[in-house]
Amino acid sequence: MADRMRVVGKSLARVDAPGKVSGTAIYAADFALPGMLCGKVLRSTLPHARITRLDVTRAAALPGVRAVITAADVPDVRYGGGLKDETAFAKDKVRYMGQPVAAVAAATPEAAEAALAAIDVVYEPLPAVLDLEAALAPGAPLIHEAWESYTAIPILHREGNVCNRARIVAGDVERGFEEADRVFEHRFRTGMVHQGYTEPRAAVASWDSSGQVTVWSNTQLPFEVQNTLAEILQMPPSKIRVVVPGVGGGFGGKLRVGVEHFAAFLARKSGRPVRVATTSEEELTAAYPRQGSIVELKTGVTKDGRITAKAGRIWLDTGAFAGSGPGVASVATLVLAGPYKIPNLYLEGFAVYTNKTNCGSFRAPSGPQANFAVESQMDIIADALDLDPLEFRLRNIVREGDEGPTGQVLNGVGLEECLLKATAAIGWKDRRPGPGRGKGLACGWWTTTGGSSGVYVKINPDGTVALNTGAAEIGTAAITGAAQVLAEELGIDLTDISVVAADTFSTPFDFGAQGSRTAFAVGNACLAAAADLKRQIFALAAGQLGVEPDALTLADKHVAADGKRLSLADVARLSQQTGGGLIAHGTFIAPPTPYDTKRVEGHVYPAFHSPSFHAHAVDLSVDPQTGEVTIHKYVVAQDVGFAINPTYIEGQIEGGVAQGLGQTLSEEIIYEGGRVLNPNLTDYKMPTTLDVPRVESILVQHPSLVGPHGAKGVGEPPNIEPPAAVANAVAAATGVRITSLPITAEKIALGLVDARAGGA
Amino acid sequence: MADRMRVVGKSLARVDAPGKVSGTAIYAADFALPGMLCGKVLRSTLPHARITRLDVTRAAALPGVRAVITAADVPDVRYGGGLKDETAFAKDKVRYMGQPVAAVAAATPEAAEAALAAIDVVYEPLPAVLDLEAALAPGAPLIHEAWESYTAIPILHREGNVCNRARIVAGDVERGFEEADRVFEHRFRTGMVHQGYTEPRAAVASWDSSGQVTVWSNTQLPFEVQNTLAEILQMPPSKIRVVVPGVGGGFGGKLRVGVEHFAAFLARKSGRPVRVATTSEEELTAAYPRQGSIVELKTGVTKDGRITAKAGRIWLDTGAFAGSGPGVASVATLVLAGPYKIPNLYLEGFAVYTNKTNCGSFRAPSGPQANFAVESQMDIIADALDLDPLEFRLRNIVREGDEGPTGQVLNGVGLEECLLKATAAIGWKDRRPGPGRGKGLACGWWTTTGGSSGVYVKINPDGTVALNTGAAEIGTAAITGAAQVLAEELGIDLTDISVVAADTFSTPFDFGAQGSRTAFAVGNACLAAAADLKRQIFALAAGQLGVEPDALTLADKHVAADGKRLSLADVARLSQQTGGGLIAHGTFIAPPTPYDTKRVEGHVYPAFHSPSFHAHAVDLSVDPQTGEVTIHKYVVAQDVGFAINPTYIEGQIEGGVAQGLGQTLSEEIIYEGGRVLNPNLTDYKMPTTLDVPRVESILVQHPSLVGPHGAKGVGEPPNIEPPAAVANAVAAATGVRITSLPITAEKIALGLVDARAGGA
Repeated sequence: MADRMRVVGKSLARVDAPGKVSGTAIYAADFALPGMLCGKVLRSTLPHARITRLDVTRAAALPGVRAVITAADVPDVRYGGGLKDETAFAKDKVRYMGQPVAAVAAATPEAAEAALAAIDVVYEPLPAVLDLEAALAPGAPLIHEAWESYTAIPILHREGNVCNRARIVAGDVERGFEEADRVFEHRFRTGMVHQGYTEPRAAVASWDSSGQVTVWSNTQLPFEVQNTLAEILQMPPSKIRVVVPGVGGGFGGKLRVGVEHFAAFLARKSGRPVRVATTSEEELTAAYPRQGSIVELKTGVTKDGRITAKAGRIWLDTGAFAGSGPGVASVATLVLAGPYKIPNLYLEGFAVYTNKTNCGSFRAPSGPQANFAVESQMDIIADALDLDPLEFRLRNIVREGDEGPTGQVLNGVGLEECLLKATAAIGWKDRRPGPGRGKGLACGWWTTTGGSSGVYVKINPDGTVALNTGAAEIGTAAITGAAQVLAEELGIDLTDISVVAADTFSTPFDFGAQGSRTAFAVGNACLAAAADLKRQIFALAAGQLGVEPDALTLADKHVAADGKRLSLADVARLSQQTGGGLIAHGTFIAPPTPYDTKRVEGHVYPAFHSPSFHAHAVDLSVDPQTGEVTIHKYVVAQDVGFAINPTYIEGQIEGGVAQGLGQTLSEEIIYEGGRVLNPNLTDYKMPTTLDVPRVESILVQHPSLVGPHGAKGVGEPPNIEPPAAVANAVAAATGVRITSLPITAEKIALGLVDARAGGA
Repeated sequence: MADRMRVVGKSLARVDAPGKVSGTAIYAADFALPGMLCGKVLRSTLPHARITRLDVTRAAALPGVRAVITAADVPDVRYGGGLKDETAFAKDKVRYMGQPVAAVAAATPEAAEAALAAIDVVYEPLPAVLDLEAALAPGAPLIHEAWESYTAIPILHREGNVCNRARIVAGDVERGFEEADRVFEHRFRTGMVHQGYTEPRAAVASWDSSGQVTVWSNTQLPFEVQNTLAEILQMPPSKIRVVVPGVGGGFGGKLRVGVEHFAAFLARKSGRPVRVATTSEEELTAAYPRQGSIVELKTGVTKDGRITAKAGRIWLDTGAFAGSGPGVASVATLVLAGPYKIPNLYLEGFAVYTNKTNCGSFRAPSGPQANFAVESQMDIIADALDLDPLEFRLRNIVREGDEGPTGQVLNGVGLEECLLKATAAIGWKDRRPGPGRGKGLACGWWTTTGGSSGVYVKINPDGTVALNTGAAEIGTAAITGAAQVLAEELGIDLTDISVVAADTFSTPFDFGAQGSRTAFAVGNACLAAAADLKRQIFALAAGQLGVEPDALTLADKHVAADGKRLSLADVARLSQQTGGGLIAHGTFIAPPTPYDTKRVEGHVYPAFHSPSFHAHAVDLSVDPQTGEVTIHKYVVAQDVGFAINPTYIEGQIEGGVAQGLGQTLSEEIIYEGGRVLNPNLTDYKMPTTLDVPRVESILVQHPSLVGPHGAKGVGEPPNIEPPAAVANAVAAATGVRITSLPITAEKIALGLVDARAGGA
């Protein structure tokens, strides 16, 4: 098929390349308006405390200060997604260190800082819940005393500090364990990690005199922010225009309202545009990081390596507010099942409140945590059964037409090919090539998030096409992918498409740049719009050329039939003369994925849509003294369905692995007594380019039934398997099994000491 | 019909009211970007000269100066509408005093002025053509020696300094004069006048690194500016984004590229955003004013007051470049015919080059000049025949089903009703109530400009609707009118519509805010979009409510059938969940107006589409010593087809009369030796609020067959009749017939002196 394709399947330069490589692209953090003020946020200095005094009088009187606001200045509403537990500012008490208490707008950053320092706030400390165990302990203090009164979608199972419990029950797990020859139980733990986007969260807000506010934000979800701002500001969404100038990385950390509401409130009070942008310290103490977790797994297998049953639980530390927690707990259970045929399952995910920053979504939310446990245990079991880990996996993986854990029928399952190609590329046959060196393998599956997308397209006077989408380009080149689908269908070049994106007033609704869905869903909407546009082009050209519309073909920027041709530029001119120009629209909604409703409870995501499959393999050495890991080679084989733009998919894979290796080896937001110990980019150790190995990407293509040209979501998966692949390789290299993230050199070195002690 | 209407036909507040009444609306002249430079233009100081030296070295080296450009820095192209005779900068010679020679961008206005002063330019004077007579004289110097080589649409009739001659020939005019009992010949003259928009022409340009330029301009025609900039910059239009932030009045003066190209060139060269805004001096010496004119009329009538033939010629002084001249000459012939049934016509319009600023379009281009002649002569003839001027008109006006001058069949002709109502309101029976006091009457017809419009609409999450139009709101409230049409059709309130307008990238093509077409054409496109949107709403709601789509009705923001209801907000939410939100589009093109092609030559506008008809009546006194005119009452009866928003139509009428009285009584750009003598708002005498009388508006409604709800264009007509109505009233009051505009107190006083001398 790809042979007949001119645009899709080709590694063409992304539409947003020039601005990005030259450094001239405007991001939200760069966006400026004349007369704009600087907004800053005062944050709680205790993890759990009552506010006994809050006086802004002195701050408001300082020179250059134009607005100071607290909970008293904003509508008294709780907002949130499925569970409305958040407030713009802490009102009576603070629930984490970093929670907003007040905000100021001033002429300069220095004046704003001075105003923050002049706000008089007194706290009375309350007992804090500092980790999952404490939150779940009987008699634990409630983070939200009034949790039962909060508005929540009915699907959630809540109780006390648990803001959702999601469950999958399939078959009879007890009978499954009885059928097993051996049963393995393990416990895993992962830390809280930040998305590490280059650009801080930032927003500029400006009001007009009609009471309409425009917010320029680097959000991934402008329409979601529009609706949430409507709740927070208590205004109709149609009076809130959210525009995305550019996004310097999101990875799920910019899904929810971050600083937009502060900018909006401050701009309204000051009567001036206001920009609020976060500092690194704010990012690492009061953003929406990936939940830390505890996972317990119990797996039963036969002697010949067939899994008969699995029971698993994951507890996600979602911080002081639910954020994405309830949904992530739901997704986690599907990841806990793994890409395996297991007849008996009992899987639970819990989102748990603690007195920490509220966690959110991070590229493949729950994926690395749950997959780390699942795939580490696969290797442990394989070793125990004296089976090759690849062979053990091949005996259990899902294949075309198999059922997923909730009963969905799986199509386009390229997992076996991924495993075979990844292991072949890493040289799996020799997986312990020498002392201190080993190879590791991990595989997994992931969803392509559905949701709806609309696009509106029009022909420019020169025959090129403007693509109007509500989806923001967050750095993935997914909009380029969608534009390639449009260009292919219209017989034009990718460079003939100009994109107008992500403005809640002027662009159609889009579910947003999240969940690996953009190229998939916007691409499909483009197919629909192209069909509409072609129909109009043919009707117009047919009249002009004196032929039947059905006889026409569209290729090479011309409409042609019977030896007569008309360029798209001519068609465009004609359309302006004869009827408002050529405009068309297309919408897409992912069809539902049928599943067995009896198997699930508390589930926001009960099945994986157009799932992708992937295998990672790594070859590494461990320094026997320091425990330091050196990665020699990293291979990803990923079933992408169809590679719309191979280079950018490889970019997603390379970036996802780099980010995954960060959380695998070095990254963690370290809390002690409710305080973050490493709230800066020196002590929060993200990998640098020197730390990232070369990554070999192998694109496997088992088409999705729904995606454009068979494409599946590709952005999140590369982030999932690095922890398990590395843990398995470290175990192969050293015999030391690390069951908590990050796998620091210190942990390995201590393990080596223990091993030597045990061996002595 | 209006009884069943909830939104159209009502005087609802305009959608852009709050920003405008509070002074917070952003116009292009206010629009600013961080780091923006100030751009200024060096202009010719001679009307016709060869440039012998042009050196910018010294200017470019001055502090704060970031760019200096001349013809040598820009593509060597001639651009223009139907006739491409313009260049961005004068190259070898200058053709009017004020023609751009160079432009600079600097950090401050002062630095820019200093740079202009430091540009070294030497001219060698050439013989200048200073008026129409000189331009048409045998052996006159050619303004454009190479006129024959210029690209022009083939329809134009050009020769030397005449850049178009348009002609209407109907019947046999010589035989018509033979059939007449009396033949009258007169000559009239009008001055050059400026549109007087409050906001100067202004544009901000900014380039991105992909080679795309965004221009924020107060143009009336963003898509026209996009295409013209593409010619001037020699770039594809799809790389040129024109956005209209707001327009402080246009009146036809902001149709064509004014300062946008200077901003774009300077921004490219300086690498910074640049704003160029004109001064009052630039406006009055180098803008696109209304052409001065000479009109000769020869009219034959029978004794009982039937017009048997008319020969007429209008010469329009279009300045050094054609601008709108060729088209205006074409329209002028239709106005010369008048709203009368005349069997034999020979009418010619000439657009003539002179060494003055290039003239353009001004609210009803050619209307006041030609109507002043026609309607003055009607009164002269009536007096000569001893007929009441009303009665004389009633014997000759067109009525329903009559033919227009080029053979079009006229529908919705409310002229008789206009004449009767206007004269009744002014107290016509007593038209010379006392010494020095008199009443005047004038009537006319005008077109509703066609062209195409597209709109794209979508439902917001709260059930309100976003209207996306390529037409700019230039102050007329026409977009409000179109939005009323949309709201009516969708069963929502006007306040439920938010408008996104006039961005060549994000909004559909629109022929632009010109020719009284906006509410008419955009309103019709809204009807089409509403039909599309309703179909989708019904399909979605039918599925949800379990009823047939055909059974549903849409009213009061709800879809309902069989006692079941769904709010539009629910439909909106449903649509976001199930398919990309609800988006729809609609396009409109005015159907052609059939006419007799054999009657016309050189015609860009051979017929009036959905013509409007109007009568003005004025009651005034003339001071017998000073000649000063005091207007007691001014009445306009205008056939608007259907009044979508009566208050704003009255606003158009009041404003049009005020503007028309300015050119009638006091306004003129006075040239002497090629130099404007009054290039400032002290000496160029626009009326103030104290000068403008109360205007009584009578809305007559004979529906157009094409307009939304029967509406016709309403914006331009009120500007047409004031000169003739006042001239006729002055004659009634004093016996003095003024045949040139403006009708200054001085001219009247001199006329009174002459009359007294003649009477003595």
